[in-house]
Amino acid sequence: MESQSNSLVVELFGSSVSYMRRWLFRVLSVGPLPSHLAFILDGNRRYARKWNLGEGMGHRAGFLSLMTLMKYCNELGIKYITIYAFSIDNFKRKPDEVQYVMDLMLEKIEGLLKEESIVNQYGVRVEFVGNLKLLNETVRVAAEKAMKATANNHRSILLIAVAYTSTDEIAHAAQESCHDKIKINANAENKVINLADVERHMYMAVAPDPDILVRTSGETRLSNFLLWQTSNSLLYSPKALWPEIGLRHLVWAVLNFQRVHPYLERRKKLL
Amino acid sequence: MESQSNSLVVELFGSSVSYMRRWLFRVLSVGPLPSHLAFILDGNRRYARKWNLGEGMGHRAGFLSLMTLMKYCNELGIKYITIYAFSIDNFKRKPDEVQYVMDLMLEKIEGLLKEESIVNQYGVRVEFVGNLKLLNETVRVAAEKAMKATANNHRSILLIAVAYTSTDEIAHAAQESCHDKIKINANAENKVINLADVERHMYMAVAPDPDILVRTSGETRLSNFLLWQTSNSLLYSPKALWPEIGLRHLVWAVLNFQRVHPYLERRKKLL
Repeated sequence: MESQSNSLVVELFGSSVSYMRRWLFRVLSVGPLPSHLAFILDGNRRYARKWNLGEGMGHRAGFLSLMTLMKYCNELGIKYITIYAFSIDNFKRKPDEVQYVMDLMLEKIEGLLKEESIVNQYGVRVEFVGNLKLLNETVRVAAEKAMKATANNHRSILLIAVAYTSTDEIAHAAQESCHDKIKINANAENKVINLADVERHMYMAVAPDPDILVRTSGETRLSNFLLWQTSNSLLYSPKALWPEIGLRHLVWAVLNFQRVHPYLERRKKLL
Repeated sequence: MESQSNSLVVELFGSSVSYMRRWLFRVLSVGPLPSHLAFILDGNRRYARKWNLGEGMGHRAGFLSLMTLMKYCNELGIKYITIYAFSIDNFKRKPDEVQYVMDLMLEKIEGLLKEESIVNQYGVRVEFVGNLKLLNETVRVAAEKAMKATANNHRSILLIAVAYTSTDEIAHAAQESCHDKIKINANAENKVINLADVERHMYMAVAPDPDILVRTSGETRLSNFLLWQTSNSLLYSPKALWPEIGLRHLVWAVLNFQRVHPYLERRKKLL
């Protein structure tokens, strides 16, 4: 009997929190909303050390935070989310750690495709961006399978940057632009590669530029992530470690975006 | 008699402030020091409005702040300073304002070359970085003259980004890299343009990457400035408008740099 009434209390509490969140989102939606949030998931390992968790548990806690945040973004109507999951530089970490993250990535990619996953629940298209050739075959095949399986979802898009650095993306785009020009005219030494050429060949060309870039752990470096795309983005560095990120950070980011939005719009008209 | 004693007090006060500053810098120098600071000079116009100053006076106040800051950086032994003086997008401002800033720039460039200027006093080499072809001829000629006149100064380097945007710099570097490859082998369709190729052709290749990027006015966007070069820089956004920037901001920026320095060094070893 006691257990039944306890579960009723928990349920009531849960639904009233959810009700309040939706009400808060409705208030926020009166102002302009960002369409694209990008995240540098910083602090997973520090979180594990802080709470004396086993190795790798920080990454698992971080994954849970990501799922919660995706749910909130979906409720708020934010269409694009990009996360920096694994940089090309990360391959230089200890082999054990790289292997652990790759295994976890494989597990999570496979998890994303399950019927009950948030991806299917919310109709999310998954795109992996980066130099995917650098991934081991199992992970690459799983990534390609996930992209194919979700290709017809349109409600929102999750871009996962793996084997990615921005400078690698730019050099790759430069090479593709050069290749294009040569195809048109092999001897055109004075050919012009312009901004639009380079931009078209970015891995990130599938999405508009992020409105907000969030880097957790209070760090303010971009660590070679979306350098080209965040030139006019609001940068936000909450002190929280990634697994501690929550609703209040999202709300604060959106409020700050709304504050600078008129100015950004005026600037866009000038560009 | 009174005036003499007043001037003595002012002189004593001035020299004791200067003494304290040098002492503070000596303390700071015990830790690692940045070698390159970059600044987005944001808030000149807001400063003019805030204090009801005439049009353009904000820019003049901002220039004074820059000179003071250059002096401090010199005393502290920071070799490179880069400032975002005029972006390619700024050409789209009202013609009157563009003309005013160009005139001011011409005046200041000419001023920099005078015997008593800070450039000569501290042995500063001046480099203009950007798509200088976009400047009007008078300003371009003055800029080239200033670069030539200071080319043999080695103590410190002031990089002035004019007619600059980072995406323009990257597209230009992509084009130059492509050009290089074609010169080597016109038919090499599968040629690889790598990171080092693009990097070599950046306007900013004359300096190491900035350690700290400061944007005043509390804004956290990069506004298309040094996107490629600030991937591992500390970003610092003091609330002060540019003309209000002072010693305390410089000290705070350096202290923050010293806090993250061990981590950045570990990262560099991994790159």
